[in-house]
Amino acid sequence: MDITKIIRQSCKNFQPYIAGKPIETLKREMGLKNIIKLASNENPLGPSKKALEAIKKNAEKVFYYPDSNSYELKKALSKKYNLPTENIFTAAGGDEIIELVAKLFFNPEDEIIMSKYSFIRYNLVTQLMGSKSVIVEMKDGFIYDLEAIAKACNKNTKAIFITNPNNPTGTYNTKVELEKFFKKIPKNKYGVKPIVIIDEAYFEYAALIKDYPNGLNYLKENPNLIVLRTFSKIYALAGLRVGYGFASKEIVSYIERMRPTFNVNLLAQVAAIASIKDKDQVTKGQKLINQEKDFLYKEFKKLKIDYIPSVANFILIKATPLKGKDCFKALLKEGVIIRAMDEYQLPDWVRITIGLPEENKLFIKKLKKVLKK
Amino acid sequence: MDITKIIRQSCKNFQPYIAGKPIETLKREMGLKNIIKLASNENPLGPSKKALEAIKKNAEKVFYYPDSNSYELKKALSKKYNLPTENIFTAAGGDEIIELVAKLFFNPEDEIIMSKYSFIRYNLVTQLMGSKSVIVEMKDGFIYDLEAIAKACNKNTKAIFITNPNNPTGTYNTKVELEKFFKKIPKNKYGVKPIVIIDEAYFEYAALIKDYPNGLNYLKENPNLIVLRTFSKIYALAGLRVGYGFASKEIVSYIERMRPTFNVNLLAQVAAIASIKDKDQVTKGQKLINQEKDFLYKEFKKLKIDYIPSVANFILIKATPLKGKDCFKALLKEGVIIRAMDEYQLPDWVRITIGLPEENKLFIKKLKKVLKK
Repeated sequence: MDITKIIRQSCKNFQPYIAGKPIETLKREMGLKNIIKLASNENPLGPSKKALEAIKKNAEKVFYYPDSNSYELKKALSKKYNLPTENIFTAAGGDEIIELVAKLFFNPEDEIIMSKYSFIRYNLVTQLMGSKSVIVEMKDGFIYDLEAIAKACNKNTKAIFITNPNNPTGTYNTKVELEKFFKKIPKNKYGVKPIVIIDEAYFEYAALIKDYPNGLNYLKENPNLIVLRTFSKIYALAGLRVGYGFASKEIVSYIERMRPTFNVNLLAQVAAIASIKDKDQVTKGQKLINQEKDFLYKEFKKLKIDYIPSVANFILIKATPLKGKDCFKALLKEGVIIRAMDEYQLPDWVRITIGLPEENKLFIKKLKKVLKK
Repeated sequence: MDITKIIRQSCKNFQPYIAGKPIETLKREMGLKNIIKLASNENPLGPSKKALEAIKKNAEKVFYYPDSNSYELKKALSKKYNLPTENIFTAAGGDEIIELVAKLFFNPEDEIIMSKYSFIRYNLVTQLMGSKSVIVEMKDGFIYDLEAIAKACNKNTKAIFITNPNNPTGTYNTKVELEKFFKKIPKNKYGVKPIVIIDEAYFEYAALIKDYPNGLNYLKENPNLIVLRTFSKIYALAGLRVGYGFASKEIVSYIERMRPTFNVNLLAQVAAIASIKDKDQVTKGQKLINQEKDFLYKEFKKLKIDYIPSVANFILIKATPLKGKDCFKALLKEGVIIRAMDEYQLPDWVRITIGLPEENKLFIKKLKKVLKK
């Protein structure tokens, strides 16, 4: 049977996903005792102790389906953010939210604007729905060019993805820039402003910066805005898949109608609720990153390695004289997993997640070795 | 902003999902100490002890993203079913598999055949993709009419959903019926036979019956076949969301390309692997259901309550003289959650999950009370 005859046109160009191997498998295959993973922007401090307790306490209940409404989780988020539950939705990670938005809004005739060098999932979901991706160049220093994005809008623009801070560059847009942008974007042929999705997966790492805009503050004035957050990053629950978003009651009501019924699993819900109650979780994560970022910047300067200053928990660095892919492979042999940036069209760069102090020291040691510096 | 102007046409008719409340909330609101849930076909014996251990042992690792390939889980399934991993895929429950198939294959001009009184998600995903649902009547006794389904095929038929055993009726189709069906379905305008999705979520409960067909046995001869299974039912991991499927290498390769990267969460993977290794899990579940089914049938006969003989872990019963919805409400006040069948177009019927012996006894007691028998 020739499957390409019957699959949807928009799925035909999907590339096979080549995922990383589990750490245990790598250890076995490479004959290594220790492997450190600085590849996926996880919080190496691990989940809140309260979350761990909640997981263990509720493990016996996993024969039940999850609460399909994430009732208690939404209540906890509502209290934390002082926002009605009707403006909040939950999903299996930020990834699912991006796909939910696409399935709800993207028609084949729609154009979706995204920035070059930003999270690749925006392009993937746009492809999935058969819509057109419009890729806008960045400003100098790998920063989102919101003015150019506003100018790129036309009658067919259905949605705009903004990542703030941006992945994989670690850069951010300021309050002033974002406020100007909201005013500038024009209405489309449907007579409304395009949906703006601000992906704030790394919100907590940037939140201490004075001119960093909290998307939540723009919700009332912009009914076209969807803000995306996650428990995968600073809350260290990536393995459990739980994200959340803020939007108008109307948008939330439709997302609720079309999302998979049991999208947030039972242990994810209890772990997330417990994490919210543990305020130390965030401050500890912020402190680690700020301290270790200083260490890494100093080392990069000593080694004359180009890097992009980051407000998130990862740093984009230039792997010269190696290609990013070769730097990745060489470090893998040394037991350090980082991320090459070919799929982001940045073949000379690698992205490293900021780890624990001993992990970062080891990384620098191994980096020196593979770059022969 | 009038959101109906900009959402996809096929999402406009989605109904707000009104989910059940969490048991804890119901207890509080209804002033009840104990509530039993016989509503969602869960296995009340709970998960395997090995699964519980695996969850607790791996809880600290949830700051890592899940293995996006479910590498170890696929290996364990491959060994259990003696099938190459290239023929196996995993997903966040059977629900996600149904949506993956729809996103991969269903175009607006396609027709999708499903049976009346079967799992409602088939119709929902068909709506999501804007395709046409063709609903075929059942045979007497609420059994899938495979002959009528084969006859309903035309040039536009892209896929056919079969549930075996069927939810919510508990009935099944025999080997002979299924084999005839495979031969009878005609090719469509794409020059291939329609995709046949056999949903075997309740496989293990029916597996002991002599003429019940194991979908896996038909895979080689039918490259259009997708078999769906789950850890939510007899394996009692509904709360963790993990399902799996068997199909040709070609179909699996495309499902892998378009599925969400981290769709099976970290604890789901380790719990599922541990469950496979615990062979008692299945036999204990089968034994409980067979024993308790006998008890319930006898009680229904005594009470002159109509029921459909079931090969799964749930039973469809006629709530006369009450409407199903009223029976549900009356039992809820008594602390027993069952499922009314209005959304399945069966307003006179309710579906009850077979529970633990003490739960079934209590259910019969409360049923007598609300039906005044």
